[in-house]
Parts: sequence; structure tokens; C-alpha cells
Amino acid sequence: MCLPRAGNSYIAIMYIIDHNLLREFIFNTFINAGFPKEVSEVAAENLIQADLRGIDSHGCARLSGYIRLTKKGRINLNAKPKVIHETPSTATLDADKGLGLWVSRMAMDLALEKAEKAGSGWVAVKNSSHFGIAAAHAERAVAKGMIGMAMTNASPLVAPAGAKKAYLGTNPICVAVPSGKYDPFIIDTATSAVSNGKIEIASRAGKRVPFGWVHDINGMPTDDPDTLKEGGTLLPLGSDPDHSYHKGYGFGALVDIMTGVLSGASFGRWVPPFVAFLEPLPDQPGEGMGHFLGAWRVDAFQPKDEFERKMERWIEGIKTLEKAPGTEEILIPGEPEVRTRAQRLNLGVPITEKVWLDLQQLKSELSIETELKTL
Amino acid sequence: MCLPRAGNSYIAIMYIIDHNLLREFIFNTFINAGFPKEVSEVAAENLIQADLRGIDSHGCARLSGYIRLTKKGRINLNAKPKVIHETPSTATLDADKGLGLWVSRMAMDLALEKAEKAGSGWVAVKNSSHFGIAAAHAERAVAKGMIGMAMTNASPLVAPAGAKKAYLGTNPICVAVPSGKYDPFIIDTATSAVSNGKIEIASRAGKRVPFGWVHDINGMPTDDPDTLKEGGTLLPLGSDPDHSYHKGYGFGALVDIMTGVLSGASFGRWVPPFVAFLEPLPDQPGEGMGHFLGAWRVDAFQPKDEFERKMERWIEGIKTLEKAPGTEEILIPGEPEVRTRAQRLNLGVPITEKVWLDLQQLKSELSIETELKTL
Repeated sequence: MCLPRAGNSYIAIMYIIDHNLLREFIFNTFINAGFPKEVSEVAAENLIQADLRGIDSHGCARLSGYIRLTKKGRINLNAKPKVIHETPSTATLDADKGLGLWVSRMAMDLALEKAEKAGSGWVAVKNSSHFGIAAAHAERAVAKGMIGMAMTNASPLVAPAGAKKAYLGTNPICVAVPSGKYDPFIIDTATSAVSNGKIEIASRAGKRVPFGWVHDINGMPTDDPDTLKEGGTLLPLGSDPDHSYHKGYGFGALVDIMTGVLSGASFGRWVPPFVAFLEPLPDQPGEGMGHFLGAWRVDAFQPKDEFERKMERWIEGIKTLEKAPGTEEILIPGEPEVRTRAQRLNLGVPITEKVWLDLQQLKSELSIETELKTL
Repeated sequence: MCLPRAGNSYIAIMYIIDHNLLREFIFNTFINAGFPKEVSEVAAENLIQADLRGIDSHGCARLSGYIRLTKKGRINLNAKPKVIHETPSTATLDADKGLGLWVSRMAMDLALEKAEKAGSGWVAVKNSSHFGIAAAHAERAVAKGMIGMAMTNASPLVAPAGAKKAYLGTNPICVAVPSGKYDPFIIDTATSAVSNGKIEIASRAGKRVPFGWVHDINGMPTDDPDTLKEGGTLLPLGSDPDHSYHKGYGFGALVDIMTGVLSGASFGRWVPPFVAFLEPLPDQPGEGMGHFLGAWRVDAFQPKDEFERKMERWIEGIKTLEKAPGTEEILIPGEPEVRTRAQRLNLGVPITEKVWLDLQQLKSELSIETELKTL
């Protein structure tokens, strides 16, 4: 399917691609770029999960970014991550500049192994790169009857409350909880008022954004999404002093501390940029990007069955609340992504023309044999 | 010191009381109400810490509330909390309807003990009551070189995104981090846009509040703080759909799950009210209020000295950022409370006339010998 172009309007040309084909394409891209098979598989799985769930900014749209960082030597094709510190319930992993998508899977699995024995398990990762969508990592705990958590820091875009310049990344926190007969409860949320992706969409569409999303280069409120490219900043969740943006600042700061400071990774304004054309700042306080992953075993607190029956009641308690005017349905955190995923598994993954062209360029550069066809 | 009454204006009569005297008064109140000495000491310490840090809603202002719940039998004077579930890094504590202020101290100390051995330690508490300020618990980790966390659920005041009625409490999250030569980094924040205390202050002063703090009984935006007494709700952090209030809803929900569902406590709209004149709802899904406390040992990830030097650099990186227009100083989470505490240690704790009268009534009811004098 290919929607008609409509001048400069908001209707971008969309290509719809079968998810299996898209996954194969992503896998082959990593393989042809020189990554080992296991790394490529795990990486493709994370990106396709992002595309399926509607986190379009984190799926195949980022593929060329990972490849460019690899070509620049900022991601190590043959990384050998190793545990450099350990207790029964914790570890620190030096990612050896490996692909964050894959290193974090390894870290999460180590955390789950520790949790099996100790009740909970926690792994801080340094010297890594972008880890994709946090939910793909945290969710691995759910299948094992655990509550999973994943956080990462990211290059600076968010100004602390009262600051003119960015110091924190959008620093997401994700927690996934087994929920019995229902889909897992999952929060997976940037600690900024909105993600960078929302600003980009508005910017491409030439639209204004609500006040409370961004500040301009002078630290002043604006509704211009382009301000972010011109030295402006994203605002922390809460958006302004009257609506407690110090809280969003606090959460974002906490993520930077747990992922960056605690692991030995870089942190604050020094976190290396995702785009390969920007060099990391000098005088780095740590190595690469940092993540923090872990899990609590549910049955380390309460029999799992009892817990799941209670989660069902907790969810039903919310779903049956009276709705506010204008609300069609009260959603449980995680529900929107589950629905998008179900739809896209059937109907395919929509991608914009920009991403399509990006993928075609990768195809030619890396001699990828997979042909992307639109549905 | 006693400020002059000023008609119906916002200047409440203030009494300033020496913190040692106020602590003695609080301690004697718990003792005369029949609590053991150890319980009374721990409880007085939590409340006076709230008063010193400027969290006035959680200090001696709540003393009579705890006593009324005790008289009603909803807090057990002679509780014998016991561990009902355990792994090397986790435990579940049945609080036996004990005073939350004290039970949580016990839970935190158990978590710290587990963290000493396992690297991290986590205790879920059920069958408890209000635990005071979360920071007083989380902070205990800092002295031992650990990152402490404390959460509690609370009776429903916050509507999930899209709901007309409250389902979640203000459900605070607190994390305290050792920060080398600086005061600990501490976030201690309700997951609602603002705390109930801010609404009460505006209501007493007859002022309007910013849109985005509350909805009325019909689920519609309003600037009337009295709406909360009339069946309205607090809004989750983020305040509205455009500013991502689903994120605040997600954080508040997560706290309810970790503290209530996971521990076996009550949860959601069933969490027992703090005020003794309201009975808990029938068909409770669990027992009493729930908390979740724990800690990660810093040196379970990285040598403590290295971590603290990095925290200092992290803090200095923020303090030296260029300020946005109108900002006097960029604050690190926890700084405002540390400053208020320093001031009140010297100058005394200000309390309103309403609280003063409340304390005088306790004095007479429980024959407390301590004389509260204003400075």
C-alpha cells in the first residue's frame, strides 16, 4: 500500500512492509555490516519489536544510525563484554563498545539468572551504545514470572528544571509486570514531557507543538518544534514549575545516575550522541552509554498465582472505572502497544518515505539481497 | 513568635517551636497513647524529620490522625511484625497492623541487612499503615553506602488517565543516593501533579489553583481546590493528555503494584483511608496499606569512592549549567529540603494555628506533660 503524495501536507508517503520481511532485512543488514549471527538476531528482534509496537522512532528508522556508528568504530563488531564486578544479586558489565541492543539482552539474562537464585538480580552496563526499546529487555522477565526493569541514559536533550541547556537524555524507565490472563502491565516512558520522536513528527509536518514540550535556545517557552535543532531543549515530564517539572527532572536524573554514574559509563551532558557526525565531548567522565537492567522474582514475595489473580483484579478495577467525558476507554499501561502490535502482525509495518529511502540506501551500500516489497 | 491574625487572609497564625521540644511532645504522645518506647522513638523521628524538611503535611500535623486510627483499633499498639516470605535478597513482612512509621524502619533495616550480603535487598510490607515521609526510610541506606528506595501506596485520590474517579493514591517514590562531599541526591515525589497538601493550602487560603492539578466530580478540568472534598480527583503528573499524564498515571500505578499487589496489602480504590471517620471499603483485596523498601549497595557495582567522585562531578555539571531566565539557582533534587532543615534546626519549626490547637487537644486528651512553647 502506498498513500498518494499530498503536496507539503502531513500525509507522508507510507510503505507497508510485512514484519517477517522487514526483520529479515534488518538481520541481513547487521550481518552484512559484519556483526556475528547471534548479535544480528538479537538486534533485529529489538528493532522489529519497536516497529510492531508503534515505537517507530526506535525501529528500522534507526538502522542506518547503528551502521554509521559501527563504520566510525564507535560500535565494536567483535565486542567481548565481560563482568567486571559481581555480588550474588548484582553485576557490572563492561560492554566493550558492543551493540547496545545485544549487550543489554546479555545483561538482562544475567540479571534473570541472578534473580533465580537470589530473589532479585541487577546488572549495570557501561561502555555500551543505544539499547533500542527498553520494553524488549524488561519484558524478558515476565515470561519467567518476574517483574523486569530496564533504563538507559542517552545524549543530552532535556534541560534540568531552571537550566537553559540540556544535561539529561530522554532517559526512559521501563517496568514490565506479569498480569495473569491479561497482557503484561508495561510502562516504558521517556522522563521528558514528550519523546524526541513527537517533536520530529511535528517538525516534519510543519506544525506547532503545545507549550510545555520545548524551550528555545534562550531557555524560553516556545511552540516551535524546530527549536530543538537550533539549540533548544526538551522539558522534563511536568513541563513547567506550576506542574511540577522538577519531578520529571528528578526521574530523568535518577536514570542517569543508575545507568551512567553507577555503571562507570558516561553521564550528563557527556553521553555520546547517537548521530555519527557528532563526536563525543572531550574529558569524558566514563565509558560509552550506560544501562541498568534487572528483575524481582514475583514468588520471592508472594506465590505467583496469588499475585496474578490480584493483578487481574487490579486491572479490572481500572477498566471498570467510570470514564471522564471524551474518553472512549481507560487503558492499562502497555495496552496501546499490544494493540498496535496485533494490528501490524496482520497488516504489516508502515514506514515513511524517508525511512524507505534510508533502507534502500543501506541495501545498496551493504549489498543486502532481501527485497523490501510493499504490501 | 506569633504572627498577627489578619482577617480571612492567607496569613495564618504561626507558632514556632523548637524541634527538640516538638520531638519530645510527639514522642510522649505516642507513649501516652500506649505505644512501646522503641516504636514511639522511631515514629517521633520520622514526623520531626518531615517538619524539619518543610514537608509540613506529613509531620506533627498528622499526629492526631495516627492516634485516632489507633483508638479505632486500625493501628495495633502491640504489633508483632513477622517475615512471611524470604529469599537471599528479598522478604515480605506482615506488619500485623503496626504503626507504618515504625514497621517501615524495620523493613528498611532488613533490606539493608540483605543488601550487605546479597548486593541488594528488597522488602515488601503488607498490613501496615501510613509510613510518614519516604525519604526518612530511603535515606537510611545512604549512611551505609547504598542507594535506598522507598514507596508506599495510599488511599485513592488520583484518577487514572481518562477516568472520572480516583483509583490511585498520591503514591510517592523516593530514591536517595550517596553523593560524596555533597548532600545526598534525594527524589521524594508524589506521582500526582501536585500533592494533596498543596490543594489543602490553596483551599484554606481561598485561592484558585492552576488548571492541571484537579478535576471535578464530573471528570472536568477546574481551578477550584475545594473540588477534591466534593468528589473530584487529583491529576497524575503530566496533568493532561497533551503533557503525557499517562506517564504520571503509569508511575503511580507501578507504585501501587509494587507496594500493594506484590506485598499482599490492599490496593487501588480499596486502600484504607487515613482519616479514622471513613471506614475501609468492603471486599478488601489485601491487608492494610503496603510499602516497598530496599537498597542497592554502591560497591556491588563500583568502588564506592569512585562512585562518589563521579556523583560530585555529576552534581557540579548541573550546578554550573547556564540558568534559564528567571532562575536564581539550579537545584539538585533534595537540596530544598536540606536547606529548610538547616534553617528550622536553628530557628524552630513553624506550625499553623490549626495544628497548634490539634496538638493542645492531644495534650489534654492524653495528659502529655511536655509544654509546647513558641519561640
